[in-house]
Amino acid sequence: MITTHRSKGEHVSETGSANIGVVGLAVMGSNLARNLASREGNTVAVYNRSPERTRLLMDEHPEAGFVASETIEAFVASLKTPRTAIIMVQAGKGTDAVISQLTELFEPGDIIVDGGNALFTDTLRREKAVRETGINFVGAGISGGEEGALKGPSIMPGGSAEAYVTLGPILESIAAVVDGEPCVTHVGTDGAGHFVKMIHNGIEYADMQLIGEAYDLIRRGTGKTPAEISEIFTKWNKGDLESYLIEITAEVLKQVDAETGKPLVDVILDQAGSKGTGVWTVQTALDLGIPVSGIAEAVFARSVSSKPAQRAAAAALPGPSINPVEDVDGFIEGVRQALYASKVIAYSQGFDAIVAGAEQYNWDIKKGDIAKIWRGGCIIRARFLNRITEAYTENPGLVSLVTAPFFTDVVATAQDSWRNVVADAAHAGIPAPVFASSLAYYDSLRADRLPAALTQGQRDFFGAHTYKRVDKEGTFHTLWSGDRTEIVTEGSSH
Amino acid sequence: MITTHRSKGEHVSETGSANIGVVGLAVMGSNLARNLASREGNTVAVYNRSPERTRLLMDEHPEAGFVASETIEAFVASLKTPRTAIIMVQAGKGTDAVISQLTELFEPGDIIVDGGNALFTDTLRREKAVRETGINFVGAGISGGEEGALKGPSIMPGGSAEAYVTLGPILESIAAVVDGEPCVTHVGTDGAGHFVKMIHNGIEYADMQLIGEAYDLIRRGTGKTPAEISEIFTKWNKGDLESYLIEITAEVLKQVDAETGKPLVDVILDQAGSKGTGVWTVQTALDLGIPVSGIAEAVFARSVSSKPAQRAAAAALPGPSINPVEDVDGFIEGVRQALYASKVIAYSQGFDAIVAGAEQYNWDIKKGDIAKIWRGGCIIRARFLNRITEAYTENPGLVSLVTAPFFTDVVATAQDSWRNVVADAAHAGIPAPVFASSLAYYDSLRADRLPAALTQGQRDFFGAHTYKRVDKEGTFHTLWSGDRTEIVTEGSSH
Repeated sequence: MITTHRSKGEHVSETGSANIGVVGLAVMGSNLARNLASREGNTVAVYNRSPERTRLLMDEHPEAGFVASETIEAFVASLKTPRTAIIMVQAGKGTDAVISQLTELFEPGDIIVDGGNALFTDTLRREKAVRETGINFVGAGISGGEEGALKGPSIMPGGSAEAYVTLGPILESIAAVVDGEPCVTHVGTDGAGHFVKMIHNGIEYADMQLIGEAYDLIRRGTGKTPAEISEIFTKWNKGDLESYLIEITAEVLKQVDAETGKPLVDVILDQAGSKGTGVWTVQTALDLGIPVSGIAEAVFARSVSSKPAQRAAAAALPGPSINPVEDVDGFIEGVRQALYASKVIAYSQGFDAIVAGAEQYNWDIKKGDIAKIWRGGCIIRARFLNRITEAYTENPGLVSLVTAPFFTDVVATAQDSWRNVVADAAHAGIPAPVFASSLAYYDSLRADRLPAALTQGQRDFFGAHTYKRVDKEGTFHTLWSGDRTEIVTEGSSH
Repeated sequence: MITTHRSKGEHVSETGSANIGVVGLAVMGSNLARNLASREGNTVAVYNRSPERTRLLMDEHPEAGFVASETIEAFVASLKTPRTAIIMVQAGKGTDAVISQLTELFEPGDIIVDGGNALFTDTLRREKAVRETGINFVGAGISGGEEGALKGPSIMPGGSAEAYVTLGPILESIAAVVDGEPCVTHVGTDGAGHFVKMIHNGIEYADMQLIGEAYDLIRRGTGKTPAEISEIFTKWNKGDLESYLIEITAEVLKQVDAETGKPLVDVILDQAGSKGTGVWTVQTALDLGIPVSGIAEAVFARSVSSKPAQRAAAAALPGPSINPVEDVDGFIEGVRQALYASKVIAYSQGFDAIVAGAEQYNWDIKKGDIAKIWRGGCIIRARFLNRITEAYTENPGLVSLVTAPFFTDVVATAQDSWRNVVADAAHAGIPAPVFASSLAYYDSLRADRLPAALTQGQRDFFGAHTYKRVDKEGTFHTLWSGDRTEIVTEGSSH
């Protein structure tokens, strides 16, 4: 029985020839394996549960020189020590099964990498379990989709510093490169990589929804066609908003459906799907006490869209008539400004979640480095990420991204337009939940006083939850059902 | 050793004299026990881990005729069969410990009630474990705070129908009564009661934040004093908005701090706390795919308020100047309308979560009955809950509360004001996140087309996530990196 063979027809049983292996050869896994194989110095072992897929990859890509195995044992035997294998199977039970197989066959010092979209708490659990065997476990977020996997993704590995000594150079060889620097860094220990990848995806939700709102406002506000709006996005992509998502938006909007001759965007069913990372981001941020309202509204916007029965019942609900915009160019520029400002808020909230996660889980995450490795390869890659790196370099203790001088200038310049756009959307009946939410967050953050004081008064009234005072230490309660005097419940300095 | 004694000085060892017991005698437990004891036909056994608290309760309330025990064994012995005990201890490990003790001492057919604010998934787990012993476990949400517990709360019991035969009349004896009907119903099996209580609290978050935003807008928009705004709320409480929260808002706003002579609301630190049920509601709704944007924004509003370092850094961020409102009365009436419409949305979203939870966990929840038992006793009790009951009675399959004729009329009447208020808040730089979010949700729900189609196009572009079409069945993908033709990925009827 042939257990291991090289492509190009050589059928030999080799042991320890590959410096890196990939388990799971669906599109992402195959592309990552091809990317690895294309880089100087890598010999790539590959394995898939059903061997048909392995054979297909071998047949289609003889140039890669893969070392293929039909059993996991042979796959493991084909790896040099310290053995390093990247798992690219569906997140969940499939991942656990492969980890369990590899843990039995690997030796202390070897490295198991989970390159899937695992929930970081799963990664924490797995890392702890695998570490007890002396084997290294690295949860690595990989962003960039199929094309990124093939040509250069952004990679966010967690795990031990020891594992990164071996793994780092391999990942650096395949990552996207921006200004000569590979888009990969050791994010932090155990689950830090998957955590940061989760936040990346959360920001991606907000970014995509903001673009959707901008498109919808321009379309419904000015009557411009998708092709015309495509040109607007192409133009925006030459300025502050330059980013992959703006670029592909222009591509999608200019696409014409061959069958109907209509813009493709008008033929696509307007019910957005999701894979769960947006939901995870919001749930995690809620646990951490971090307001990620822009991301939450973006996740909710997708779920509203995917409720056809409710939408059908609600189609008859009354709305205003939309008056065409008079100053079309001014309106479009206002939308651009609002998009930029709202995007700053989405990133500001996302980085708040990273800071809180790092504190909660004892990760030494360098915020500036995260922004840096997001500049290339990943879905949210954007020009303005350089500015985030600069902001955290100038002030590593920055408490909120929007308070960094560069971003304060952005919102200062944008805010009149931002306010107008949110107001116009409300008047016109065009939903702009993330624009509106981001602005409300901004105004909450800078408010001298918030009605939270009233909330505390209500909570004290109905639940004796107590309150603090602005003028002295301690915790207080008003005897609402009694004579309404105030009592000290603990620790007053008076 | 005296293990059981009755108040009024009788020290006898009685067995099986009490039809109901309460474990945990902090304020909520004590008040619930006193409420039970005050009702005809109840003899109430009480037990607390530290006997001092039991003795204090006995001393202070000899009229209650409590049967007190100093050990859990004596407490159990003091109960008639089927034994029924309500646990009122801190949620979490304390609850598990008491359940474990009672499960060892109780017999099949007896009933353990958890009256705390347990997370419904904990209740599912506990119910399953206890049920295996033949003992009934009932998770019962109890709302109304300390005063409600004493005078009549709204009670949301889950658990088996069998347990409700015994437990129901006892709970009905102590619940709030509205229009002759006690505010308690058998919500559904196992965790249904705690689930519905969680959603109740989530709606409460939105309701409180909406009131806060209304207050803030009036105060900053018109310059009226808290005392003057208190009068406005008092007036509002005579109309559509009549509710406990509006009523107590008027009370809180008119309260003057004895020490400084200032309105109390200006002396209270504006950092709102929370106990976690709002977070649970949003996290659960995210799992269920239900957009509860109003509740989420309310939860986030509290967390923004509780970030003093960020707020201090953001205090210098630029904002607009606030121009005083010209038509003060018109503005205030607009805020009232916006509050009413936004409140309808908060309830609509909350009931969507109840419907989705019922489907997910196989609960036969009668939505109209839930609205009915929320009319009295609980924090969100309000006049308009009758309208919710009517809406679900008329149309049990109602897909969205806001599409019921009565509520559609409410938003139709309110929408001009609602839009103006959201726009005015954006222009003035006064944060109104739940007003804005509710309006955006409303406009999303009724939109003919949503930019979700663009989102799907983007997802197909970068991740080959595929899309559906408006004009035919099947799943499609455009070869974005190829010749940009469309391919069928599954199940097209063409």
